[in-house]
Amino acid sequence: MSAIIEGPYMERTLVVLLEDKPGTLSHVVNLFRRRNFNIESLTVGHSETPGISRLTVVVLGDNDRIEQIIKQLRRLVNVTKVSDISDDAAVIREMTMIKVHCKPGTRSEIHDLANIYRAQIIDVALESMIIEITGTQDKVDSLIDLLRPFGIKEISRTGSMGMVRGLSGITNG
Amino acid sequence: MSAIIEGPYMERTLVVLLEDKPGTLSHVVNLFRRRNFNIESLTVGHSETPGISRLTVVVLGDNDRIEQIIKQLRRLVNVTKVSDISDDAAVIREMTMIKVHCKPGTRSEIHDLANIYRAQIIDVALESMIIEITGTQDKVDSLIDLLRPFGIKEISRTGSMGMVRGLSGITNG
Repeated sequence: MSAIIEGPYMERTLVVLLEDKPGTLSHVVNLFRRRNFNIESLTVGHSETPGISRLTVVVLGDNDRIEQIIKQLRRLVNVTKVSDISDDAAVIREMTMIKVHCKPGTRSEIHDLANIYRAQIIDVALESMIIEITGTQDKVDSLIDLLRPFGIKEISRTGSMGMVRGLSGITNG
Repeated sequence: MSAIIEGPYMERTLVVLLEDKPGTLSHVVNLFRRRNFNIESLTVGHSETPGISRLTVVVLGDNDRIEQIIKQLRRLVNVTKVSDISDDAAVIREMTMIKVHCKPGTRSEIHDLANIYRAQIIDVALESMIIEITGTQDKVDSLIDLLRPFGIKEISRTGSMGMVRGLSGITNG
């Protein structure tokens, strides 16, 4: 989401572990809001630890501002861990659903494109198909561009989710 | 995330379209907070329309409370559409990354399990693997249960994202 940003800035991916308590998520989101941060995407769901949710948020900001907000996030009650994984060896991927128009003549062409991208067709109707793709933002963007000429009806993206490669990681232990 | 809920309640999946403006996301999250709603998962990313984000939120609540919050969400400035897709013919799926311990003797066993679930191995290290799976919550839960004996190190879930089947859908048009 757009905001006024001064100076050089870049996309950063933060992982936040937080207790499943009412209000915790709004405290986190409000902190980004108050600091006028630009939330590109946000996804939150269960983690490996019962009672702990794991949030991935992609924001735009320069290093100083990012360092500051990480400190402030760590100070929040019910937030148990905050990591910037942007510079780590991490897998960062998103899931996207794309509803595209089709007709008998284009269905197999769309199917072929989906196969090339290892995307799955999760719904087929008379005049539309839903394609599910997971991967980096670039890969998803590139499939969307290729599908655009057929007529895109609807897109839903989770936004990026990340995990550090190898045995070390971001856990609540 | 847990909250005190009176009476019968169920899981509902709402899709919300909102303008990419600072503060819009916090207004939505704060509304759920003020009404003491239980956010099970939330994911927000770009939609098919530039400047419009698409949010999927899974909440627990009874019908009356859900109807009320939908009305209140619609009243928010910068929210352009709100739909409850729980009773629609919709595909509802999530993406999950699971980091599991492995050793030479168990790596191929884990690989076989991943194949059965059409999950992808997106990282292999000496003592761990990261598996990416997309599907319904039940399917994901079931793979997690099968991987648990190997030792799960880390889990990150996007939470459910949904799209109505066929050509009709939730768009900003």
